Amino acid sequence: MRVLVSNDDGVDAPGIHILAEHLGAVGRVTVVAPDRDRSGASNSLTLDVPIRATQMDNGYYRVAGTPTDCVHLALAGLLEEEPDIVVSGINNASNLGDDVIYSGTVSAAMEGRFLGLPAIAVSLVSRDHQGVHYEAAAQAVLLLMRRLLVDPLPADTILNVNVPDRPWAEIRGFEVTRLGKRHRSAPCIAQTDPRGRPIWWIGPAGGAEDDGPGTDFDAVRRGYVSVTPIHVDLTRYQALEKVSGWVQAMTRAMDDEAA
Amino acid sequence: MRVLVSNDDGVDAPGIHILAEHLGAVGRVTVVAPDRDRSGASNSLTLDVPIRATQMDNGYYRVAGTPTDCVHLALAGLLEEEPDIVVSGINNASNLGDDVIYSGTVSAAMEGRFLGLPAIAVSLVSRDHQGVHYEAAAQAVLLLMRRLLVDPLPADTILNVNVPDRPWAEIRGFEVTRLGKRHRSAPCIAQTDPRGRPIWWIGPAGGAEDDGPGTDFDAVRRGYVSVTPIHVDLTRYQALEKVSGWVQAMTRAMDDEAA
Amino acid sequence: MRVLVSNDDGVDAPGIHILAEHLGAVGRVTVVAPDRDRSGASNSLTLDVPIRATQMDNGYYRVAGTPTDCVHLALAGLLEEEPDIVVSGINNASNLGDDVIYSGTVSAAMEGRFLGLPAIAVSLVSRDHQGVHYEAAAQAVLLLMRRLLVDPLPADTILNVNVPDRPWAEIRGFEVTRLGKRHRSAPCIAQTDPRGRPIWWIGPAGGAEDDGPGTDFDAVRRGYVSVTPIHVDLTRYQALEKVSGWVQAMTRAMDDEAA
Amino acid sequence: MRVLVSNDDGVDAPGIHILAEHLGAVGRVTVVAPDRDRSGASNSLTLDVPIRATQMDNGYYRVAGTPTDCVHLALAGLLEEEPDIVVSGINNASNLGDDVIYSGTVSAAMEGRFLGLPAIAVSLVSRDHQGVHYEAAAQAVLLLMRRLLVDPLPADTILNVNVPDRPWAEIRGFEVTRLGKRHRSAPCIAQTDPRGRPIWWIGPAGGAEDDGPGTDFDAVRRGYVSVTPIHVDLTRYQALEKVSGWVQAMTRAMDDEAA
Repeated sequence: MRVLVSNDDGVDAPGIHILAEHLGAVGRVTVVAPDRDRSGASNSLTLDVPIRATQMDNGYYRVAGTPTDCVHLALAGLLEEEPDIVVSGINNASNLGDDVIYSGTVSAAMEGRFLGLPAIAVSLVSRDHQGVHYEAAAQAVLLLMRRLLVDPLPADTILNVNVPDRPWAEIRGFEVTRLGKRHRSAPCIAQTDPRGRPIWWIGPAGGAEDDGPGTDFDAVRRGYVSVTPIHVDLTRYQALEKVSGWVQAMTRAMDDEAA
Repeated sequence: MRVLVSNDDGVDAPGIHILAEHLGAVGRVTVVAPDRDRSGASNSLTLDVPIRATQMDNGYYRVAGTPTDCVHLALAGLLEEEPDIVVSGINNASNLGDDVIYSGTVSAAMEGRFLGLPAIAVSLVSRDHQGVHYEAAAQAVLLLMRRLLVDPLPADTILNVNVPDRPWAEIRGFEVTRLGKRHRSAPCIAQTDPRGRPIWWIGPAGGAEDDGPGTDFDAVRRGYVSVTPIHVDLTRYQALEKVSGWVQAMTRAMDDEAA
Repeated sequence: MRVLVSNDDGVDAPGIHILAEHLGAVGRVTVVAPDRDRSGASNSLTLDVPIRATQMDNGYYRVAGTPTDCVHLALAGLLEEEPDIVVSGINNASNLGDDVIYSGTVSAAMEGRFLGLPAIAVSLVSRDHQGVHYEAAAQAVLLLMRRLLVDPLPADTILNVNVPDRPWAEIRGFEVTRLGKRHRSAPCIAQTDPRGRPIWWIGPAGGAEDDGPGTDFDAVRRGYVSVTPIHVDLTRYQALEKVSGWVQAMTRAMDDEAA
Repeated sequence: MRVLVSNDDGVDAPGIHILAEHLGAVGRVTVVAPDRDRSGASNSLTLDVPIRATQMDNGYYRVAGTPTDCVHLALAGLLEEEPDIVVSGINNASNLGDDVIYSGTVSAAMEGRFLGLPAIAVSLVSRDHQGVHYEAAAQAVLLLMRRLLVDPLPADTILNVNVPDRPWAEIRGFEVTRLGKRHRSAPCIAQTDPRGRPIWWIGPAGGAEDDGPGTDFDAVRRGYVSVTPIHVDLTRYQALEKVSGWVQAMTRAMDDEAA
């Protein structure tokens, strides 16, 4: 199995090193990751400037680009052989609920949705981005990968995995979850820079609003590895009928007006 | 009605000016948009540096940030009164199928999902980013907005609207659609910069793979305004059961091993 | 006379508009300036990514690049006819003493050193970047330009002009000066960003250390327009002899060792 | 002796590693360098966003900033003890003549002008940025440093050192030089990006215009290490008198007009 590893914390972050080392047990690992911390990069693709990739002494590729750029470039140019799976992480903080739409970790995995096996995004549910038990998260991914080898899931699936930041022995198991939901973010933080000009910092994400049973929030709180299957089709199918009626009424009104 | 307008082509793009002017007919419009073209920015949030906003002579806010930054900042700090709705666009090219996960236009709208009315992202289905009939797209949005005022949709909806690039008189109507699907992107383009070093450009998006009846691709091809309700909950609910069985089998295997 | 105008405060700054309007009285003006505030950019050239220029409604060129990029691009690609002179400013703060080695305003002028007339960098000696009397600075440049037309200076000269921020009627005249010298900068300002990570801000420039008679500091303090001729040859000619002796001694020591 | 080492090719470049290792023979070395290639950054200071520094496993500091930011931050905040000297390089290409005003390598050295010993910028005169004999350049710096320890030069001096790219045994010695001069740069290179939009690349530097005896160009061509003392006072003293007469005539004309 050929495994492409990326992340959004950057190629020098501890999580990606531990992940890559562990995955060496199940496959041939290639690392292609951003040269800087690109947390919050979402599925951002760099379209206005070219990107550059350099191979480091340890064989990892360092890319001056986003997580999505990294995986996109790996699959569409850089690598001679296509990998079977993309694994992204280990992120130094959780990606729960609405986080996933902003997360570069999840986006890197999404960019691997065309490959032969489900892409995996893995995050450590740490405090203040100070993760401790990366080994536990790596172990969780390793088990998921081994399972995939003997009992594959459909290729177009993405698994968003969040692991409690505790020793592996204290992890209670795996749970399949749906994404919970966060409250609105905290307000932006207004400051004045040292030259007297106004600046704004994006505030922290909101607390959990929907974190009840069945959600990813709930699973990790109870000490389980949360596994959420996600997809890239944003269509709100449940709303199709309602919006359809709404649009038809609008169209009738237009026609009446025209008549 | 208070309307917040943003985009990803930048505050100087023609589409946002035409949109803002038209929406003045139904509400009080505030424009907060990026200072540069940020196409492809997705839901990227700027977390590592502060952002700056300056008000231009015409009252628009120019923000050195992403589309998501713009709407986030407007709602969580910059504006004194919360708007009722976010409208994002008019993008100078289509946002169909998988495009929406990369699109800054759609992301700006998503960031308005907490407001009182559905957010709207609007794109012109132009050739080569050279849109002509922005007026038609603005007219389509105006009709949707007027309809919302008399017959509201649920607030947590986002409408992704694509408008054929033709005069309004030649638009055949509105259609509710699901997102189609694109083939994989074209390969990255390898070049050498003038200093002899290798660079890569992200290649163009792939052609349509699933563009049959009911999709956004199909509606715009037949001359209709495509209206796709989308959401931010990426959970793949249909897969929950299958993945659940899969995870349980894995857990059993672990337990057996431990026993 | 064809005049190329640039700056480092960005194409939307008030100073460049006032400058361009006034210079219309003596020549045909083209404006090519950065799309953002690029103060502190020095002679920075963008070598790793391509640059883009778009013409605005008012005819100005907006460039996603540094001040040096702007003038370089204008002279080496963008403009069909070569200008006779580059004028850069009006900067919203002074450029005195050591400031000039960091200043984008001065660097933009330097990049015009190959043209037919001396390049001019002009700065307003404001408080806290809140300049008021840009008109006075524009007037000072206009007089310099008119003088150049009847009594030219050598082409390879750069004039660094600082104008007190007061009404023209209260300007006491022009003085030729040498660059003074600043003390070391204030320390960097250590902060913690909203995500708990350490950041540093570059502190303000140091106060004047050498600001006695004959310096630019002294002239503006007494209400004069300071005009400092500067050049790009950084060779410290006075030190050549001393360093030469020093190097010869070193070489002899090497030879002795080898012998 | 405490030595601060920086560069503009980035903290991962081969030149800075070889330099830091060699200088360990004469002093305690701290490395603070940009996280990316910042060639052409000149004395650019980052004023609009904060900068970040992280210490790598090998003890080097990686800074998301310019070369000038790196040295500025090291001296004005990061380091507990002030170094005695800044050495910048080994740049992977020459910095001859006008190059120095754009060079990040030279600028990093300039930022160390307030320390106890002369700052040194060192560059390898390679072909196409593919330097081979970094060891020779490191050896040249080491000899200069040893000489400085027994026979100091004034502290406010900066030595711009260019070393032929050949084995140390084939270096013919040291020569003190003045900066030569280059012709104007090659034109910008106009291209179209993959999305059909016009872009420009800054072209290569011009060839030598003044490279006769006594210049840095000449010394390296003949196989010598070129040592050029440079300074940061850009005042063109030779022009003061001429410009003074010119300005006085202008002032008289103004007075006559007013009379």
